[in-house]
Amino acid sequence: MNQAVIAIHGGAGTITRAAMDSSREREYIEALEQVLIAGQRVLADGGSAMDAVTEAVRLLEECPLFNAGKGAVLTHEGTYELDAAVMDGATLNAGAVACVTRLRNPVLAARAVMDHSEHVLFAGEGAEAFALSQGLELVSSDYYFTKARHEQWERARAVKGMALLDHDAAALANGALAGQADPIDPDNKFGTVGAVACDAHGNLAAATSTGGVTNKQVGRVGDTPVIGAGCYADDVAAISATGTGEMFIRTVAAHDVAAQMRYARVTLEEAARRVVMEKLPAIGGRGGLIAVDRAGNVTLPFNTEGMYRGLARVGEPVMVAIYG
Amino acid sequence: MNQAVIAIHGGAGTITRAAMDSSREREYIEALEQVLIAGQRVLADGGSAMDAVTEAVRLLEECPLFNAGKGAVLTHEGTYELDAAVMDGATLNAGAVACVTRLRNPVLAARAVMDHSEHVLFAGEGAEAFALSQGLELVSSDYYFTKARHEQWERARAVKGMALLDHDAAALANGALAGQADPIDPDNKFGTVGAVACDAHGNLAAATSTGGVTNKQVGRVGDTPVIGAGCYADDVAAISATGTGEMFIRTVAAHDVAAQMRYARVTLEEAARRVVMEKLPAIGGRGGLIAVDRAGNVTLPFNTEGMYRGLARVGEPVMVAIYG
Repeated sequence: MNQAVIAIHGGAGTITRAAMDSSREREYIEALEQVLIAGQRVLADGGSAMDAVTEAVRLLEECPLFNAGKGAVLTHEGTYELDAAVMDGATLNAGAVACVTRLRNPVLAARAVMDHSEHVLFAGEGAEAFALSQGLELVSSDYYFTKARHEQWERARAVKGMALLDHDAAALANGALAGQADPIDPDNKFGTVGAVACDAHGNLAAATSTGGVTNKQVGRVGDTPVIGAGCYADDVAAISATGTGEMFIRTVAAHDVAAQMRYARVTLEEAARRVVMEKLPAIGGRGGLIAVDRAGNVTLPFNTEGMYRGLARVGEPVMVAIYG
Repeated sequence: MNQAVIAIHGGAGTITRAAMDSSREREYIEALEQVLIAGQRVLADGGSAMDAVTEAVRLLEECPLFNAGKGAVLTHEGTYELDAAVMDGATLNAGAVACVTRLRNPVLAARAVMDHSEHVLFAGEGAEAFALSQGLELVSSDYYFTKARHEQWERARAVKGMALLDHDAAALANGALAGQADPIDPDNKFGTVGAVACDAHGNLAAATSTGGVTNKQVGRVGDTPVIGAGCYADDVAAISATGTGEMFIRTVAAHDVAAQMRYARVTLEEAARRVVMEKLPAIGGRGGLIAVDRAGNVTLPFNTEGMYRGLARVGEPVMVAIYG
């Protein structure tokens, strides 16, 4: 039997230490720890990697600190559009939803698509109709509301009149975007949550969920629900990504990690490093990913200043980190 | 300079010879030839691979014989939902639209997303709003109507009350589905069109477009607009797929062909064979793909009885085929 392990991320980007005071930092660290402890418990109780990542991402969606589920960012129209995906490495089964606006937990809808549909991906109202038929909880858009995200959206509309994208710390330091509530918001394109796990049987799974980009155009879909881009698992590796979604789609980032391992026989760490440190930057891609292989190796690379992240091996203390 | 080449497909599946009389066969062959001649002309005039595949797929969408654009199949609700994607191997630029209902040429919308948006994928009304802002032509749903597809939809509702999927020739031979107008309809899940090309500079491109599955649930998205699944191009290979979309998503089929070539150093033909003849059947996947590499090699494998397909090298006669 393997020593089971789960890893999570809560988004990557320009996490400015100036905006992150110690009480706020503690809030993030404690939230990450609680999610890891819950995922670890699923694995310790003999649960599957799939069950562990679903539960971890559900909890990240429930937490208003992260850009998924409650706490999601707003579109240009002031609405919410959420995406999520899950993939089971043991079977290559997968499920995903895109552009949903009324589901409390998009990751549970993705899981239901995988478990109870002949399809893999549903978008928009069709996704919600399916989720409803599966007894999943619908919410009004008020549910997603947080003061911090709404203020961020108002700033984005005022300052740029477009999506808040490629800011870096330097740009932030001198301007209208400083001093906001969420230390990662300036680079909110990178706001996504995810989990990967290897269970005691060596089976792998991945799950990813996001509210997308603040002030994004309605209908834009990023890498999160695209199997192979923001979420992928097979019998070699499981990967969940966060970052400038378009570049992760164009590099088929998550699948490329597993493909390098399978075909070029490189290690998990080296395959992930090449994607995050070479392939993505080559086309302007920023962000990171978390990945686990069937031996339980874990790697958490990112090319930004920070990534909310952590891992927990069954029987060991959880580890979390924010900066590089 | 390379000898430029373009290849196309018009869907794969159980093309029953019984349903395909010689005049109908001629109709399909002539349609494929006309599209190839047009694509060949773009390349002969020094056009890019990207321009050649866009034009070929636009013409396939215009042709009512194929399940894309005019001639698309109907959803369970009697509506139309179309998907398309393009990818430029020279730059890894890509564009895609999913679940559009009012665009005359979804492939032109995908191309506009690639050329004029910072995003890669738009779904639903957001995709249409973007296309409209780019001056693309909207149509009423009457535009897509063909008598053959409507009759097929009515049969699907009557016979199965669900999507017309995994029929095989044997099942067809004895029943209610025989004698219909379109010889490939019984397996219409496989109805998709696509093109791949290598231009004189050795640059590669791919484009794919579909009306989806007859009687499908609203909101279902197949592999067509998923970069890496039904459409992919890089500097190694360009691939367009057609088949049971869900399995092409789960195997990240198009990207896997290129990844095998890049990392395992296998040939285009061998990489495509493994995906179509081994990986897809292992999870019940049926269909085929067309692929080209930068040396101008072309392969057109399928694991079904037939695939509408063809290729044209600049300066040579076009070649088309239907059966295996």
